[in-house]
Amino acid sequence: MKELSTTGYYYSFGTKEPVKEKDSSVVSRLARMKENFEKEGLRKTVEAIIIVHNHNHPHILLLKIANTFFKLPGGKLKPGENEIDGLIRKLTKKLSPIGTSVSDSPWEVGENIATWWRPNFEQILYPYIPPHITKPKECKKLYVVTLPEKCTFAVPSNLELIAVPLFEIYNNSQRYGAIISSIPQLISKYHYVYLSLDA
Amino acid sequence: MKELSTTGYYYSFGTKEPVKEKDSSVVSRLARMKENFEKEGLRKTVEAIIIVHNHNHPHILLLKIANTFFKLPGGKLKPGENEIDGLIRKLTKKLSPIGTSVSDSPWEVGENIATWWRPNFEQILYPYIPPHITKPKECKKLYVVTLPEKCTFAVPSNLELIAVPLFEIYNNSQRYGAIISSIPQLISKYHYVYLSLDA
Repeated sequence: MKELSTTGYYYSFGTKEPVKEKDSSVVSRLARMKENFEKEGLRKTVEAIIIVHNHNHPHILLLKIANTFFKLPGGKLKPGENEIDGLIRKLTKKLSPIGTSVSDSPWEVGENIATWWRPNFEQILYPYIPPHITKPKECKKLYVVTLPEKCTFAVPSNLELIAVPLFEIYNNSQRYGAIISSIPQLISKYHYVYLSLDA
Repeated sequence: MKELSTTGYYYSFGTKEPVKEKDSSVVSRLARMKENFEKEGLRKTVEAIIIVHNHNHPHILLLKIANTFFKLPGGKLKPGENEIDGLIRKLTKKLSPIGTSVSDSPWEVGENIATWWRPNFEQILYPYIPPHITKPKECKKLYVVTLPEKCTFAVPSNLELIAVPLFEIYNNSQRYGAIISSIPQLISKYHYVYLSLDA
């Protein structure tokens, strides 16, 4: 069985300047996606499943936006950018204190554990390319990311970083969406080794 | 990206004697599970995700029982039995022509891709051990199994072996249950290489 070490809550949290949302609505977001597709082709995004633990139960770190949306940290790759480099760049930019360089960042990127596809300029993604779709519009790859025992976060002040237990996420696509709500199944194969600084 | 070669439908199918169901009802099945738990402890089961393709879309092989239930091929390990040996034994017994020895069987067992837990003597399983459960009753491991280009099946006459496309399984827990309906997410990380004997 694959072992995965997770760490507890020994993290320092700070805040930093808010991140501006690029789009004011879903419609404008999909329109921008279409515009970019015409210029750059397939949109490639990478997101991190960061697993921590509390009371010996795994939790996932999620960004909460405007008290309603939840998303995994990550984002869009630059054209030609390597997936792992791009994910580290995005995580550092979003979650590390200002001035942290990519080489000092704490993220250890592990397995690509799932891949989702957006067949059209619409909100819905699938964990496969649907039949008859020859030109999907986005490919989103999820990576398992682990943290060192100590780590300092700085979260943009318009976002909240929260640790959500698997039992809350599981089967709860209404609240967390199709992608996040199936994370418990994806990581079920791991045998967790709960590290504790108290030991 | 992990590559996974899948084969098409170049299989021969036959039938063999029906397999007797050990239990006549869910209640008697759960009662037998409890009885065995007292003798043997944690029940360990292994199941196969056998991926084939048709029209360049992945399909999963499922056993259909009494025209209503669907299950993955596999079953219970003997006490102390190795997971991979046990899965090959079960697949050979259930799906290969009578007289096929385990060493002649076509199953190539790959990654353990998910693990489900039964916390109580009840029907529901979870992809994690729920908090406060110290003695789960069953641990079910799913393995990805691939097939050679040619293969002969013999399916018990009271069962039907069917290939179901991912788009039919996805998000359809009502028909296929929680475990089977999340297979598309589990195997989404693979880049499929569709082998064809026509080439």
